[in-house]
Amino acid sequence: MKRTIALITDFGLKDNYVASMKAVILARNPYLNIVDISHEITPQNILEGLYILRNCYSYFPRGTIFVVVVDPGVGSQRKIICIKTKRYLFLAPDNGILSFISDEAIKEIHEVSNKRYFMRSISNTFHGRDIFAPVAAYLSKGLKPSMLGRRLDSFKKIRIPSPKIEGKTITGSVILIDKFGNLITNVNKKLLKGTKVIQIKNRKIKKISNTYAQSEPGSLIALIGSSGTLEISMVNSNAAKALGVSTGDHIFVKRR
Amino acid sequence: MKRTIALITDFGLKDNYVASMKAVILARNPYLNIVDISHEITPQNILEGLYILRNCYSYFPRGTIFVVVVDPGVGSQRKIICIKTKRYLFLAPDNGILSFISDEAIKEIHEVSNKRYFMRSISNTFHGRDIFAPVAAYLSKGLKPSMLGRRLDSFKKIRIPSPKIEGKTITGSVILIDKFGNLITNVNKKLLKGTKVIQIKNRKIKKISNTYAQSEPGSLIALIGSSGTLEISMVNSNAAKALGVSTGDHIFVKRR
Amino acid sequence: MKRTIALITDFGLKDNYVASMKAVILARNPYLNIVDISHEITPQNILEGLYILRNCYSYFPRGTIFVVVVDPGVGSQRKIICIKTKRYLFLAPDNGILSFISDEAIKEIHEVSNKRYFMRSISNTFHGRDIFAPVAAYLSKGLKPSMLGRRLDSFKKIRIPSPKIEGKTITGSVILIDKFGNLITNVNKKLLKGTKVIQIKNRKIKKISNTYAQSEPGSLIALIGSSGTLEISMVNSNAAKALGVSTGDHIFVKRR
Repeated sequence: MKRTIALITDFGLKDNYVASMKAVILARNPYLNIVDISHEITPQNILEGLYILRNCYSYFPRGTIFVVVVDPGVGSQRKIICIKTKRYLFLAPDNGILSFISDEAIKEIHEVSNKRYFMRSISNTFHGRDIFAPVAAYLSKGLKPSMLGRRLDSFKKIRIPSPKIEGKTITGSVILIDKFGNLITNVNKKLLKGTKVIQIKNRKIKKISNTYAQSEPGSLIALIGSSGTLEISMVNSNAAKALGVSTGDHIFVKRR
Repeated sequence: MKRTIALITDFGLKDNYVASMKAVILARNPYLNIVDISHEITPQNILEGLYILRNCYSYFPRGTIFVVVVDPGVGSQRKIICIKTKRYLFLAPDNGILSFISDEAIKEIHEVSNKRYFMRSISNTFHGRDIFAPVAAYLSKGLKPSMLGRRLDSFKKIRIPSPKIEGKTITGSVILIDKFGNLITNVNKKLLKGTKVIQIKNRKIKKISNTYAQSEPGSLIALIGSSGTLEISMVNSNAAKALGVSTGDHIFVKRR
Repeated sequence: MKRTIALITDFGLKDNYVASMKAVILARNPYLNIVDISHEITPQNILEGLYILRNCYSYFPRGTIFVVVVDPGVGSQRKIICIKTKRYLFLAPDNGILSFISDEAIKEIHEVSNKRYFMRSISNTFHGRDIFAPVAAYLSKGLKPSMLGRRLDSFKKIRIPSPKIEGKTITGSVILIDKFGNLITNVNKKLLKGTKVIQIKNRKIKKISNTYAQSEPGSLIALIGSSGTLEISMVNSNAAKALGVSTGDHIFVKRR
C-alpha cells in the first residue's frame, strides 16, 4: 500500500523550506504520496496549527504519517515526539500541538532521539529538514516508532479553549477565520439545540440556516460548519471583515 | 495508466479544505496524480474559474478528471454534474463554470446524485470533501459516470463575454490579470489582422510585439499571449497597477 | 527508480501557468514525482531564484531534473540550456540563474534547441509550458541531454555578491528575507570566528546564539542559519519589519 506523508508547517511557500523537506523525504522514499495540509499557519501559532490539523486528519488514509512543524522551540531542549494511534503516526515537537489526540486513541508515544535516522549534520534552526523529514521517510518505509527513542508515558498538552455554559447562555469563541471570512467557532452543534439568538459583536442572528444559498447575498447567517461547529458567515461576502472579528473574539448563544 | 485528478477551487491554501479533499481522494485511491490547478480563484467568481480552467485543461493527459469547486450555491438545490468529453471527465456544480466546453466535445452529461459514492455524512457547506472528492476517486478507479445519476440533456451555460465588432473597431475586455500584472483580454489573435492602434485607458499602442524582450523595461506593449488572445504587458513591470486596470475594463482595437 | 522533477518559477499559484506545465509533463510521463520548490520568486528576480534553488537542490534525490523558469528574456535570442552535473539535470534560461553550479560539478552543457522535444506550437511568452515542460518530461524518461542541441563550453554567469573583508571588518549583505522575517546573509559561518560585534542598521548584536529559544521573545539575535550563513532573527517576531531591512542591505561583522 502506498503511504501518505502529510505536512503541516508555518514555513510558507516562497522559501526553500518545504521543498527541502520534500527533497529529503523523496531521497529516502520516492514511492509515496506527499500532501500539503497547510504551510500558511501563522508563524509559531501552535493553536491554529492544532485546529487546522484536527479539522482534516481523520479523512486521511490509514497509515498516514503526519509531520507537524510549528516549532517555536526549535533547537531548545523541547523534545520531538512520535505518537502512534490506531490509524496514524504523528511526528511533532512536544509543544502541545497534538493535544487534540485523545488518550484512548493513542497506542504508543516515543521520543525521537535516535540520531541514526537524522541527517548527518543537524542545524539548530531547521529540524523540519534535518530530523522530521528523514524520520518520516524511514517511518514510511516501515521503521517501527520504537526504534526512534525511549517510550514516553505522556506528552505535552495545551488547553484548547472550550465554550462556557452558564444557565441559558453559552459563551464560545472564534477559533479560526477561513479564506472566505467565515468565523469558525468552538461551539459544537450539540450545544445549539433550542437556540433563541446568537450574538457576535453587536449583531444578532435568530436562526440557524442550513446553507449559504437560502439567504440573500450580504446577509449574516449562522450555520453548522463542515467541522461540526457553529459558523458565522456573510453570504457571498466576508463576515470577519464586515464585523471586524478576530480569532479569540467571543460569541454568545442564548437558548430557550 | 496512472490517472490524474486536477483540482480547481476558491478554497485558498491556508485552511484545511484542499487537504481534506485530497485526503478523501487518497483514502479511496492512492495510485494517482493529484494536480492543483489553482485554489486562489476569487471567492465565488465563477467566470474567473472558468477562464483559468479553460486556459489549461487541454494540456492534461487523456482521462484526467477535473474537479471544479467554485460553488456559491453549495447546499442549495443546484445540481452537481459530471460531463464526459472525448478526452476528459469534469465534475462541477451546475452553475455555468463549464460553459467553455463545446456541445460537440460532449459525450454524456450525468447528474451526480447517487449517495452510494458520497461520504456517509454530508455537510451543507463542504461538498468538495463530502461529494466531489469521493466521486472523483471512484471515477479514477473506473466507475462509469452513468452510475452517478440520471442522464441530462443539457447543463447550465453562462454568457462568456466576447468582443463586439463595429466597423473597424473591436471592443474587447480584460478577462484576467495575472501575477505579473499582464492584462489578458478576450480578443482572439484572428481579430488582430490589420491592427492600426490598440487603446486601453488613455494609452495607445501602435504595434503588436512578438516578445517582452524586444522592448525597453517599462514600455507598454501588446502581444499574443499564451492562450492565443491579445495581452497587454508592461515590460519587467506591472501593467495592471501602472494603468489602474481591473478585469472587465474595455480594450479597443482599431483596424485599417 | 522513480524520477523527480522539481519546479522553480515566478509564476505564482493563482494563474494557470504552473498547472499547464504539470499537465504537459504528466501527459508525457505520469510515473514521476513533481515537487514545487517555489513559484513565488519575485517576478524576474534571477538572483532570488538562484539563492532559493541553491539552498535546497543538494537535498533532492540523485537524478532529479530541476526546471527553472525565471525568464525575463522569454521569446528573445537568449538560449535555453541543460546542465548535467554528477547528480542532477538542470534546465533553465541561460540568464545566470545557474551561476551557483561550480565548474567542477558540471559534466556537460547543452543548448536546448531541438524542436522535436518541444510542443508543436510554441508561444512567445510561455516557454515554461511549450519548451521546458515537455523537454523535462522526455529527460525524465531517459532522453540524453546530448539529443537536445549542440554542446556548449560555457554558460552565462552572474556575479553573486560576496562579503568584503577589510582588516577586522566584514561587510556582507542580506540576500534573502524569509516568511518569518529572518535576514539571511551571505556571510559564511567560517568568517564568524572571533566575532566581537555584528551591526545591522543601527542595531548591534554581541554574540552568536545557537537557537531562537535561548533568548526572550522580541530579542534580536544572530545565529548560523540552515544554509550555513549568518542570519539575523527577532525571536518569535519579524526582524525585517522591526528593523526596516530589505534585501541588499549591508551587515557588518567586526572581529577581534
